[in-house]
Amino acid sequence: MRLRNKPWAKPLIAENPQYVVTDPAALRGNWQSRFEKEQPLYIEIGMGKGRFIVEMAKKYPERNFIGLEMQTVATGIALKKQIEAKLPNLQLVCANGSGLTEFFEPNEVSGIYLNFSDPWPKNRNEKRRLTYKSFLAQYEEVMQPTGHLEFKTDNRGLFEYSLTSLNNYGMEFDQVWLDLHQTPDLTDNVMTEYEEKFSQKGQPIYKLEAHFKH
Amino acid sequence: MRLRNKPWAKPLIAENPQYVVTDPAALRGNWQSRFEKEQPLYIEIGMGKGRFIVEMAKKYPERNFIGLEMQTVATGIALKKQIEAKLPNLQLVCANGSGLTEFFEPNEVSGIYLNFSDPWPKNRNEKRRLTYKSFLAQYEEVMQPTGHLEFKTDNRGLFEYSLTSLNNYGMEFDQVWLDLHQTPDLTDNVMTEYEEKFSQKGQPIYKLEAHFKH
Repeated sequence: MRLRNKPWAKPLIAENPQYVVTDPAALRGNWQSRFEKEQPLYIEIGMGKGRFIVEMAKKYPERNFIGLEMQTVATGIALKKQIEAKLPNLQLVCANGSGLTEFFEPNEVSGIYLNFSDPWPKNRNEKRRLTYKSFLAQYEEVMQPTGHLEFKTDNRGLFEYSLTSLNNYGMEFDQVWLDLHQTPDLTDNVMTEYEEKFSQKGQPIYKLEAHFKH
Repeated sequence: MRLRNKPWAKPLIAENPQYVVTDPAALRGNWQSRFEKEQPLYIEIGMGKGRFIVEMAKKYPERNFIGLEMQTVATGIALKKQIEAKLPNLQLVCANGSGLTEFFEPNEVSGIYLNFSDPWPKNRNEKRRLTYKSFLAQYEEVMQPTGHLEFKTDNRGLFEYSLTSLNNYGMEFDQVWLDLHQTPDLTDNVMTEYEEKFSQKGQPIYKLEAHFKH
């Protein structure tokens, strides 16, 4: 969703180049230099306000994380969290995710998260959905063959579409959840801001974990 | 579900050999002889009380249909519908569907329907689910390469399992519905007894249409 403009966001990003990358193509193949330790790299495409990626970075200090977001305001809100948390294994990127193969070398990424992506419900916008085949091809290129894609959404139409799209692309499903918050053993689930609000209303959250065939 | 015993069911089946086959293996490769016309053959595995397959046979007179059911009582109830409707393109089979390749020759079937199959929720019963890989292998053997499998259920766990099972088997999804009765254009949907009752409560009906790769 688009957020109301916050005049502080752009200056805050400019003042914190240690946490926010605005020219990700320049780091292609060299992302590990941005972290304290060299460790497997996980990225979230469309991190929004950043709660998910910040919590993940806290929970898994043995991994490096990058949150990508094209909206300046959302990146600014995520940055505030990182300024407070000062996580050495988290970097934020303010850029459009459609150039993923320009930002990452083949096999540079160990795992990819898509959370509550824009559903683009109209047929004519199919190509903009982050589970459209052209995006899947980019994920396949940048991710190691052993990597997994994790996708959560509350949008039924997008999830129906994505199940078919990933299947038709030839991805193998690891697991499907059609009402994630009804799962008995959910301790592993890190929620986004949106997910918490939405699941409290009792509406189902869908999740799919899948990998490319190798 | 198991139905209460009806003492009339078994005699009724015995009196109507023109509609009910009890030794399907004997007709392997020769099913068209049971119908008025030679036309593409569609089968429902576990027809229950038969409403779906009877309605399908009425709706598509240019196709032949077989409803398979292992329970005598359910077959008897379906038979009553057929005795009334006298459809020349419908045959019923009272037998256990696990011997599908003993009942049908390769390519003898044009399409397969699974409706509200037993979910067998316990892990140790996975092999009994009609979307387990050993059943899929049988469907692949008896169905023409251009054929489609249509699967409906209200059971979330079974649908989650089936999405993964069909995908892992290598089937290609045509379409997924996560709340079938919320679909705007649903004129094509023929309901089972169970589906009508269940969907009226507002609970979602899941549907998957898929085919084997060729």
